[in-house]
Amino acid sequence: MIYKIKTGIVLLVFATVFQYLSYGSEPPVKNANPKYVFLFIGDGMGVSHVALTEAVLASRESKTGGRQLNMTGFPVVSLAMTHAKNRFVTGSAAAGTALASGTKTSINTIGMDSARLRPLYSIAARAKAKGMKVGIITTVSIDHATPSAFYAHQPDRNMYYEIGEQLIKSRFDYFGGGGFKYPKGKKRNQPDLYEQAKTSGFQIISAKQPFDTVTSRSLPLMVVNPVLSDDADMPYQIDITNESFSLSQIVKKGIEVLNNPAGFFMMVEGGKIDWAAHANDAGAVVGEVLELDKAIGHALEFYSKHPDETLIIVTADHETGGLTLGYAVTKYETNFALIDHQKASHDAFEGKLKAYKKRTPVHQVQFDSVMRMVAADFGLGAEIKLNDWEKEQLREAFMASMSKEKVSLMKEENTMLYDNYDPVAVMARKILAHKAGVGWTTWAHTGIPVPVMAKGTGQQLFDGWIDNTDIPRNIALLLDLPEIK
Amino acid sequence: MIYKIKTGIVLLVFATVFQYLSYGSEPPVKNANPKYVFLFIGDGMGVSHVALTEAVLASRESKTGGRQLNMTGFPVVSLAMTHAKNRFVTGSAAAGTALASGTKTSINTIGMDSARLRPLYSIAARAKAKGMKVGIITTVSIDHATPSAFYAHQPDRNMYYEIGEQLIKSRFDYFGGGGFKYPKGKKRNQPDLYEQAKTSGFQIISAKQPFDTVTSRSLPLMVVNPVLSDDADMPYQIDITNESFSLSQIVKKGIEVLNNPAGFFMMVEGGKIDWAAHANDAGAVVGEVLELDKAIGHALEFYSKHPDETLIIVTADHETGGLTLGYAVTKYETNFALIDHQKASHDAFEGKLKAYKKRTPVHQVQFDSVMRMVAADFGLGAEIKLNDWEKEQLREAFMASMSKEKVSLMKEENTMLYDNYDPVAVMARKILAHKAGVGWTTWAHTGIPVPVMAKGTGQQLFDGWIDNTDIPRNIALLLDLPEIK
Repeated sequence: MIYKIKTGIVLLVFATVFQYLSYGSEPPVKNANPKYVFLFIGDGMGVSHVALTEAVLASRESKTGGRQLNMTGFPVVSLAMTHAKNRFVTGSAAAGTALASGTKTSINTIGMDSARLRPLYSIAARAKAKGMKVGIITTVSIDHATPSAFYAHQPDRNMYYEIGEQLIKSRFDYFGGGGFKYPKGKKRNQPDLYEQAKTSGFQIISAKQPFDTVTSRSLPLMVVNPVLSDDADMPYQIDITNESFSLSQIVKKGIEVLNNPAGFFMMVEGGKIDWAAHANDAGAVVGEVLELDKAIGHALEFYSKHPDETLIIVTADHETGGLTLGYAVTKYETNFALIDHQKASHDAFEGKLKAYKKRTPVHQVQFDSVMRMVAADFGLGAEIKLNDWEKEQLREAFMASMSKEKVSLMKEENTMLYDNYDPVAVMARKILAHKAGVGWTTWAHTGIPVPVMAKGTGQQLFDGWIDNTDIPRNIALLLDLPEIK
Repeated sequence: MIYKIKTGIVLLVFATVFQYLSYGSEPPVKNANPKYVFLFIGDGMGVSHVALTEAVLASRESKTGGRQLNMTGFPVVSLAMTHAKNRFVTGSAAAGTALASGTKTSINTIGMDSARLRPLYSIAARAKAKGMKVGIITTVSIDHATPSAFYAHQPDRNMYYEIGEQLIKSRFDYFGGGGFKYPKGKKRNQPDLYEQAKTSGFQIISAKQPFDTVTSRSLPLMVVNPVLSDDADMPYQIDITNESFSLSQIVKKGIEVLNNPAGFFMMVEGGKIDWAAHANDAGAVVGEVLELDKAIGHALEFYSKHPDETLIIVTADHETGGLTLGYAVTKYETNFALIDHQKASHDAFEGKLKAYKKRTPVHQVQFDSVMRMVAADFGLGAEIKLNDWEKEQLREAFMASMSKEKVSLMKEENTMLYDNYDPVAVMARKILAHKAGVGWTTWAHTGIPVPVMAKGTGQQLFDGWIDNTDIPRNIALLLDLPEIK
């Protein structure tokens, strides 16, 4: 035994010295094994989404800039390329599969090779096979692309019911966040997935009281947020009410119940960073990144108790929105404090506009009434003054959104300006962003490399201008995960 | 002596093991000293500028993506925050000073504190004071903000003549690239800086033949590119002719002449990445990043001969343009091969437009003639088909640029669309970029953190979500540079 430890130390010393002397030109060495691995995925969270959140936090303290978040304090920070097997700009299914299994696949494919013939097994499934406990947590529906890539194998991400069935079969220990998107199938004529999950032994928690008393003896467990939106997702942080759990609460509970001597693997997705960024909604992005970072804080607390056995990785599946911290008209000036004037997500505000349109006959719809709603939720025209050009943009958006007067735009121009969102709502959040000095280039994902932040045992393996597939490959190496055939 | 070496190794082993066991939560340890340090600064080169260049290279090989450049093969890749002391979005003077001296300063200040009272000494000056040789190379004028931050101390970056005088006084060994912006001062009434440099002992090389025969015995040396544009800068790579040196040639020669047993520090700026990005000119950006990467290739050759004593850092002073790899209208599709249809930089193309306008009476100016020029230099309307919206945008730009018919745009809209560039030229390059799937959000710099790539002795010190001031501080630590009082 003593002999073994000594050999280990000598080898470790030799390996680390070798790595230092070779200055990184050799493949990195594996110097120790973690037992507890956290993989945080900010869906759509590019470098700019993190930087915007830090800039807003800095503005609250009247600082020019600087590090503010848990994740940016990680010792290893690198970049990962995200392209899919068959497209430069990836999607959450292909990117989720790459991050789960270490293999690039085709767009929309979940946990299968690009030809959609062969299953690809995730590091979560392999950790489970090794005897570790596994948790999968997300703010969107639990059968959404990113989480499902860790337990399902389907040729199409839209096969939500089949994905739900595979969730139950996975026998993973802890699922938390959103619910099943179609618990009874798209046509609502199939056996209820929640009932099937219970039959298979899962406890299902969807209220505050039982959640608080849950322990590791309650596993396997599905925590379904008491408040779900139409797509079985959790509310945006900016809209959240007391009835809802928060992502960080579900993560904290997950750590509590999964902690065991055989170790655990936990994947946590901040899924609505992406949704907010699709809508070019800066205020909602900041709320979601902050909540993900709060969840990372719980992982760091765990790390501080098990520093030699814990590895925390934070990354993204792709960037969404082409977000940048600079806008043509504001030039070198920024005013990130303006973002805090936003009171509702794009979803919540569009809901209010819809209600207004519903209750108001079309010939009574008034620009001024709509502008009062814009003022209430974005501060525009109230605390924040609008210039003539901005007023003009809002008026044009009002015409496109709800006026009797016909507005004819070329298809491409309409896509560029509003996409499929309500024009007034888009323009309100874009003007707020622009005045803050924030720009967007697309409603879709981009191919910009995403940040990777690593802390803990084996962190060095995640350095470099890496590929997204390197991340699970390195985790598998560090955890010495068995292959599944 | 043996005792000393052994102690050194033991300490090194102890330090590295300690760092590994502490998993990076402790301050990084200095494990060895480099003797040859390269600092490459891509002015305005964000993560996206590097990624765009890689995507264009990948498209030439019909690949979906992947690593293509020298710089992205570096073992340590991290991110640096760039904010100035008094503004979130920095400028090249404040950022250059931060990268040169390790201290944040105010906008437009060169090598002085933010109050502009006290000089800040750069790692170049401190390396010189230590007896190392020093080279400063750039594609823009040698008295421009980034290079001057390494040898000058002026309250304003626009004091070009005074900066030139301080260049001469620096006694650095090798200056290369662009020339002095105002060799005789702004009013052309001051003693010629080139003559003063000669009097002070500098050789000035501005032709091919002597350049080829230069050796270390020719130091101190100023290599002034034989072809200079109006601002004493080198031509864009996309416009370059045989009469010009290239950045990589000047760097290769620099390595040759600076190589000496006491070591050297070399700063190399790809200065026109920024200028191209200000103009939202994707084709020119790619050419400039590629040339900087070629220069980095020469540093890597040197590294391969001195792996234990060389450190190469590649970074940027800030991002310019809010460049992203995704555009609203093209959604998830990209076609980076289109970028290669561009045949001239924004500068060269605007020159052609100006000449056309000069030789054509205003009532004879024709949209079709201008479109033939757009087709020749961008492929638009020729190999690359235009849709109705794109044609409309070009027609509006034509009206704004040179038609008799008055076009009235609100000030902000004009800034957003064209800034101070020629509208037709802007629209041509923007449409090409958009069709490729490339977006821009500003004509100015942004506050997005920039990539840092490190390879060689001490590379670990540059990891993390760092501040730009950490870079020279770490170089000074590794080189054990003396303070200058």
